[in-house]
Amino acid sequence: MSDMINIGIVGGTGYTGMELLRLLARHPLARVRVLTSRQEAGQRADSVFPSLRGFSDAVFEVPDFERLAECRVVFFAAPHGVAMQLAPALLKRGVKVIDLSADFRLRDAAIYRKWYGQEHAAPDLLSEAVYGLPEVHRADISTAMLVAGPGCYPTAVQLALVPLLVAGVIELSGIVADCKSGISGAGREAKLGSLFCEVAESFKAYGVPGHRHLPEIEQGLESAAGNKVGLTFVPHLVPMSRGIHATIYARLRQPMSDLQPIFAAHYSGEAFVDVLPAGSHPETRSVRGGNVCRLSPHIAPDGKTVVVLSVIDNLVKGASGQAVQCFNLMFGLSETAGLESPGLAP
Amino acid sequence: MSDMINIGIVGGTGYTGMELLRLLARHPLARVRVLTSRQEAGQRADSVFPSLRGFSDAVFEVPDFERLAECRVVFFAAPHGVAMQLAPALLKRGVKVIDLSADFRLRDAAIYRKWYGQEHAAPDLLSEAVYGLPEVHRADISTAMLVAGPGCYPTAVQLALVPLLVAGVIELSGIVADCKSGISGAGREAKLGSLFCEVAESFKAYGVPGHRHLPEIEQGLESAAGNKVGLTFVPHLVPMSRGIHATIYARLRQPMSDLQPIFAAHYSGEAFVDVLPAGSHPETRSVRGGNVCRLSPHIAPDGKTVVVLSVIDNLVKGASGQAVQCFNLMFGLSETAGLESPGLAP
Amino acid sequence: MSDMINIGIVGGTGYTGMELLRLLARHPLARVRVLTSRQEAGQRADSVFPSLRGFSDAVFEVPDFERLAECRVVFFAAPHGVAMQLAPALLKRGVKVIDLSADFRLRDAAIYRKWYGQEHAAPDLLSEAVYGLPEVHRADISTAMLVAGPGCYPTAVQLALVPLLVAGVIELSGIVADCKSGISGAGREAKLGSLFCEVAESFKAYGVPGHRHLPEIEQGLESAAGNKVGLTFVPHLVPMSRGIHATIYARLRQPMSDLQPIFAAHYSGEAFVDVLPAGSHPETRSVRGGNVCRLSPHIAPDGKTVVVLSVIDNLVKGASGQAVQCFNLMFGLSETAGLESPGLAP
Amino acid sequence: MSDMINIGIVGGTGYTGMELLRLLARHPLARVRVLTSRQEAGQRADSVFPSLRGFSDAVFEVPDFERLAECRVVFFAAPHGVAMQLAPALLKRGVKVIDLSADFRLRDAAIYRKWYGQEHAAPDLLSEAVYGLPEVHRADISTAMLVAGPGCYPTAVQLALVPLLVAGVIELSGIVADCKSGISGAGREAKLGSLFCEVAESFKAYGVPGHRHLPEIEQGLESAAGNKVGLTFVPHLVPMSRGIHATIYARLRQPMSDLQPIFAAHYSGEAFVDVLPAGSHPETRSVRGGNVCRLSPHIAPDGKTVVVLSVIDNLVKGASGQAVQCFNLMFGLSETAGLESPGLAP
Repeated sequence: MSDMINIGIVGGTGYTGMELLRLLARHPLARVRVLTSRQEAGQRADSVFPSLRGFSDAVFEVPDFERLAECRVVFFAAPHGVAMQLAPALLKRGVKVIDLSADFRLRDAAIYRKWYGQEHAAPDLLSEAVYGLPEVHRADISTAMLVAGPGCYPTAVQLALVPLLVAGVIELSGIVADCKSGISGAGREAKLGSLFCEVAESFKAYGVPGHRHLPEIEQGLESAAGNKVGLTFVPHLVPMSRGIHATIYARLRQPMSDLQPIFAAHYSGEAFVDVLPAGSHPETRSVRGGNVCRLSPHIAPDGKTVVVLSVIDNLVKGASGQAVQCFNLMFGLSETAGLESPGLAP
Repeated sequence: MSDMINIGIVGGTGYTGMELLRLLARHPLARVRVLTSRQEAGQRADSVFPSLRGFSDAVFEVPDFERLAECRVVFFAAPHGVAMQLAPALLKRGVKVIDLSADFRLRDAAIYRKWYGQEHAAPDLLSEAVYGLPEVHRADISTAMLVAGPGCYPTAVQLALVPLLVAGVIELSGIVADCKSGISGAGREAKLGSLFCEVAESFKAYGVPGHRHLPEIEQGLESAAGNKVGLTFVPHLVPMSRGIHATIYARLRQPMSDLQPIFAAHYSGEAFVDVLPAGSHPETRSVRGGNVCRLSPHIAPDGKTVVVLSVIDNLVKGASGQAVQCFNLMFGLSETAGLESPGLAP
Repeated sequence: MSDMINIGIVGGTGYTGMELLRLLARHPLARVRVLTSRQEAGQRADSVFPSLRGFSDAVFEVPDFERLAECRVVFFAAPHGVAMQLAPALLKRGVKVIDLSADFRLRDAAIYRKWYGQEHAAPDLLSEAVYGLPEVHRADISTAMLVAGPGCYPTAVQLALVPLLVAGVIELSGIVADCKSGISGAGREAKLGSLFCEVAESFKAYGVPGHRHLPEIEQGLESAAGNKVGLTFVPHLVPMSRGIHATIYARLRQPMSDLQPIFAAHYSGEAFVDVLPAGSHPETRSVRGGNVCRLSPHIAPDGKTVVVLSVIDNLVKGASGQAVQCFNLMFGLSETAGLESPGLAP
Repeated sequence: MSDMINIGIVGGTGYTGMELLRLLARHPLARVRVLTSRQEAGQRADSVFPSLRGFSDAVFEVPDFERLAECRVVFFAAPHGVAMQLAPALLKRGVKVIDLSADFRLRDAAIYRKWYGQEHAAPDLLSEAVYGLPEVHRADISTAMLVAGPGCYPTAVQLALVPLLVAGVIELSGIVADCKSGISGAGREAKLGSLFCEVAESFKAYGVPGHRHLPEIEQGLESAAGNKVGLTFVPHLVPMSRGIHATIYARLRQPMSDLQPIFAAHYSGEAFVDVLPAGSHPETRSVRGGNVCRLSPHIAPDGKTVVVLSVIDNLVKGASGQAVQCFNLMFGLSETAGLESPGLAP
C-alpha cells in the first residue's frame, strides 16, 4: 500500500464528486485521503451516498489547505470559481491539480469573464493548463501539473467532430451540434428546474441564445481545424439521470460514400472511444456507468450531409471518468486503471 | 341527440385509437357508433382502457363494411395499408374518411411504394385526398370527403417551418430537423424495442439512413416554398410516453434580428398554434394531452442560423386531436369542439 | 356570466394550486378572481404554468385580505399554518373556505400540535370544520362554511376501508396500509430529495416511525368503525409524478368468499368511486388527471386476509379535484361540474 | 489462464443472462465458453448488448449438449422448464448446474405442478438441489452439484424475515410481504404489459390471487421457523428497470424496543447483507448493479408491529449476482470474486 497515491477531492457532494468516489474505490493505486464539503463536514461519504457503503471510508471535512497540500493530486469537483482560487498555491507546493469545473478550460481570460460572469483569479495559469481530453492531448496531459477536465457536451461533440476536421472533409461553417443531456448534468443542487415533477415525462431545449459550452467547443474544434469554425450548439434536457447524446450535422466538402474508415483509423488503439459498426445508432444506456464514447458516423439520404451520433455518460467520460483517465496519464499508470468496468444496462 | 354525428373507428386498440375515444367522449356532437378490432372483438373499450370507464360504452367488434357504411365518417386508426383498402367503397357510399395512417399522405404512388413497401391500392384517390393540416389547408379540409391526417413529426416540423418558407427568409437547402419523440410514437404493439427496460433511462437516434416521414415533410415544405427543399431529418426516441420536440435549423437569407413578428402574424387567429413569448423554450409537457403546437423561433448566437423550437403531443396535435380538428371542419362545427381542455402537467 | 362564482386561491404556485387552476378553467360556473403568491406576484399564472396558456388570465398578486374577502369562497393551496391564520376573518365576512392543507383536518388541537409542531391558531374552528370527503360527509359539506380537504393518502385509504368498517367484516386491529405515492406529493419546493436524479429509477419507504397522515387516517377510520382502530401506515415514493396506490391488509372476522357486493352496494350511485370488476388490479395511470378513486377488494389465498387495492391521482381526487367536488356541494351545483374529464393515459 | 473455469450459459438473451455476462466479464477466474440462444445463434453477445462491447467475445450458439458438457458448470438463465430437461444429463457428466429459473426451487413436485402448470421432468433431483441463498445455506451450496437460484422476491423477503424467525420474536401468522419490483422482473420478452407506455408513470399490484413466489417464500420461511407460517404476499410493478423493495409487516410476540441487534448479529460477517443504521429507509438505487441486500428493521408507532424494509437489485442479488456468489462457493473461490463493485447511483 506504500505506493498508493494520496488524493484530495474538493467538493465531494455533487454528482461528479460522488462518481469520483465510486470510480476511485475500485482503482488499484488511488487512495482518497481528503474529501471536503463545508455542508457535510463530519459526515461519512457513505452516509450521504449509501451505494458506497462498503467501498469508501472517506469522511467529509472542511476544506483546509494544508490537508490538501499533503496529497499528491487534488481533484476539484466544485462549482466554477473554486479551483482557480486554490490551484495556484497547490501547484506551488508540487501538488497536481485536476479541475472538473470550467475554470481552466478556456485559454482566454476575457472569454471566461464573458461567459462565467467573474474575473479569472489565475489568468497566468490558463496557458499552462492542459485540456484534459486524452484522445487529443494525451502527451501534454502526461506531463501536466494542471489539467482542465472538459465539459460533458464538449467531450461528446469534439470526439465526434475532430476526426472529420483533421481529415478535412467537412465545411467549417454551418456545423450544428444538437445535444441532449440527462438531468444529472444540472448538478445536485436543490433547484426547482431539476425537480422530478418538472422534468419527468418532458423534453425541452435550453440555452439557445448562448450556452457556456459553446466557446469551449469552438476553441477545441478550431484547434483541430486550424481555422475558424461556425457552430450552432443547442442543448436539451432528457428525462433520464445519466447520458449525453450529440447529433452532429455538417456538410461534406466533396461527395463521399463512407466515413467509417476515417473514424476507425482516427480512433484505432483508443481504449475509450468505440466506433460502432457502420450504420449503428448508439444508445446512451450502452455507456451508462462506463468511461467510453460510442460513435457512429452517417451520411444523410441527401448524400451531402454528415450526421455523427455520439454518446457518453456525462458523469463518467463527460466528467469523473475522464478525470481519472487523466490522473492515470499524469502518474504514469495504465490509462485504463480503475476504468475497466462495463456499463450498466438496463 | 338526434343531431349527433355517428362515427366509426377502425382499429381502436392502439394509442391513437384510444386517444380518439378519449377526445370524442367529451365532444358535444360526436357519437362513436362502430369501433373495430379483430383481436378485442366483444370487449368493451373501457375494459381495455380503464381510464375511459364512465366515459365510453363502445364495444369492439369485427370490422364489417355495412356497419361502417352506416356512419357519417370513419376514422382509420389502423396500421398503414388498411385505409386504402376500405376507403374507396366508403367514399362511394358517401361516408367521409379521416385516415390517421400514411395511406393518403403522399401524392405520388411511386413514393408510397418506395417508403411503405407495397403497391398503393387506391392511387386514384391520392389527388383527391386533402392533407389534414388545418393551419395550411383549412378550406380544402372543410369540403373534403377524404382527409389524410399528417404524421406526428411532419406536423411539428411543418408548423415550425412553413412561416419561414412563406416569408421567404431562409435558404431552402441545408435545413435540419432534429426531432425527438416519446415512445408512444412507436405504437401499442408488443415489440422488444418498445419495452420499458429497453428505452427507459436511455436516448438514441433511429432511422438516420431514411425515415418514412422524410418524403412527407419534404412534400409539405416544398408546397409551402414553391420549390425544392434540402432537408435532413433525424428522429430520436425520448424516454417518455407522449410528446414531440422538433429543433429546426436553417440559414437566414439576409441578416434579421427578430423572427417573432413573422410567426405572430402567420399564426394570428389560430386556436391551436401558440407562438410563445420571444426567447422561450417550449416543454413537451406543456402540450401533453392538449391539441396545440407551441413554437418559439430563435436566432443563434452566430446571427445567421435560425433555430425554431416546436412541441406537440404526438397523440393529440400529432394524430387524434388533429383528426378531430379536421372532423370539426368537415362537418361545419366549431373547429375547437371537443378540443378545449388544457394539457396535463406535471 | 353574472352567476359566476368568484373564487380566491391562496398559494397558487404549488402543484395543488396549479391543478385547481386547470380544473377551474373548465368549470362552467367558477371564476378565479384572486390568485395569490408573494414570490410570483405580478406574473401571469400561464407564464409559470405554460400548459394553462389560453385557459387562464389569472395574475398572481400579493395576498390581501380585502381582495380575498370579495370572493365567495377561498381555496387555500398553501403550506400548513397559513389557512388557520386567515380563515377566521374570512368566515366572519361570510366567505366560505376550502382548505387543502392539514390545518382543519384533525379535530383535536393537541394532536395537531404534536404532528405539525405548532400551536393551532384557530382551535375553536376545529369542531366547525367539515372533513371534505364527500363520500362520507356529503350532507355536512353541503352546508359547511369551512371544509378541510383530506390528505391524499387518507383519501385513498379511507375510501378503501370505510365500506369494510361500516359492514363490520374486518378485525379493527392489525390493519396495514402500505401506500405508494408519486413525487408530486412532496410539493413543488426546491428540495434535494425531490430532484429527478434523487428519485428516478428508485423506490423507498419513508416516515416509518410516524407520518402526519397517520392520525388523520385513524380519526376517519375510527369514526367509521365507531371504535378504536389499530393501523400501521407506511408511505413510499414511486418514481412517477402523479398517483397514489394504497394496498390495504386486514383480517376477516368471519370467513367470506366475496367482498365485491359490499363495495358495490356501498358506492352505488357515487360518481367518483369506481369499484372495478371482481379480481381487478387498478393502475394509477387509469386515474391520472381524473377525479376518481378506483378500487378492487380481494381475499388473499389464505382465505382470511382482505387485500384492497385503491388508486387515486393525488393531485385530483387526493387534493384539488376533491376540493372542487366540495365546492360544488357547498354551492348547490352539480357535484360533477368541472370534473367530467377522463384521465390521461398513457 | 489454465485455471480459468469454463462456463456455459443456457438462454443468454434475457436480462439475467445479460447480467451474468456483465458480472462474469469482471470475474478473475470465470470464462464464458458456451452461450446459447436459438434465436440469436451466430450473433455476438456484444451486438445484442452493446454495453458489453470490449468486455465479451462470446457468440450465441444453438444449444448443444456436448458443448455444454465440456464446461465445468452450466448456468440456466432460461425460462422455467428448460433446466429440468437438461440438468440430469449434465450432472451425470459431472457438470455442476446453477439454475436461475424456478425448476429446482420447490422441494415438492406437486407444488411445482400446481404453480408452474407442468409436470416436473426431474422430480428425483428436487431433494438433491440446494436452495442457493448463501446466507442461509452456505455450507450446502459449497458442496452442491445442483443449485437452485432463489427468486427475486423470495430473496428480499427471506433475508428480511429469517433473522426474526430464527430469533423467535414474531408471530408466525398474519405476516404481510408487500413487495415492489422494477420492470426487468418481467423479463426481456416482447409483451404488451411490459411496454414503456403501459408501465411508465404508473403503479399497480398484480397477482393478488396468487403468485408463484408465494410457495417458494413459504417454504423458506417455514424452514427457518420450523413451523407453518401464515403469509400474504402482494407484488407490485414500479416504473423503473431494476430494484425490489420488500416491506414486511409482522406482529411482535413480546414488546421490544429495538430489533437492530438481532439483525446486526444475524448478518455479522456477511459480505452481501448490509444492515443499515437504525431508523434508515433503504432506497433501491443504493443497490442498483450491486450484489447486496440492504435492510432496516423498524417498530411501528403502535409498538407491536415490526416493519422491515429490504432492498435488492432483482437482477443481481435477486438473480445473476447471487448465482455468481453460489458459483464462487461451489468452486471454493472467494465468495466475493467478481462481485466487488459498488452500485451505480444516480
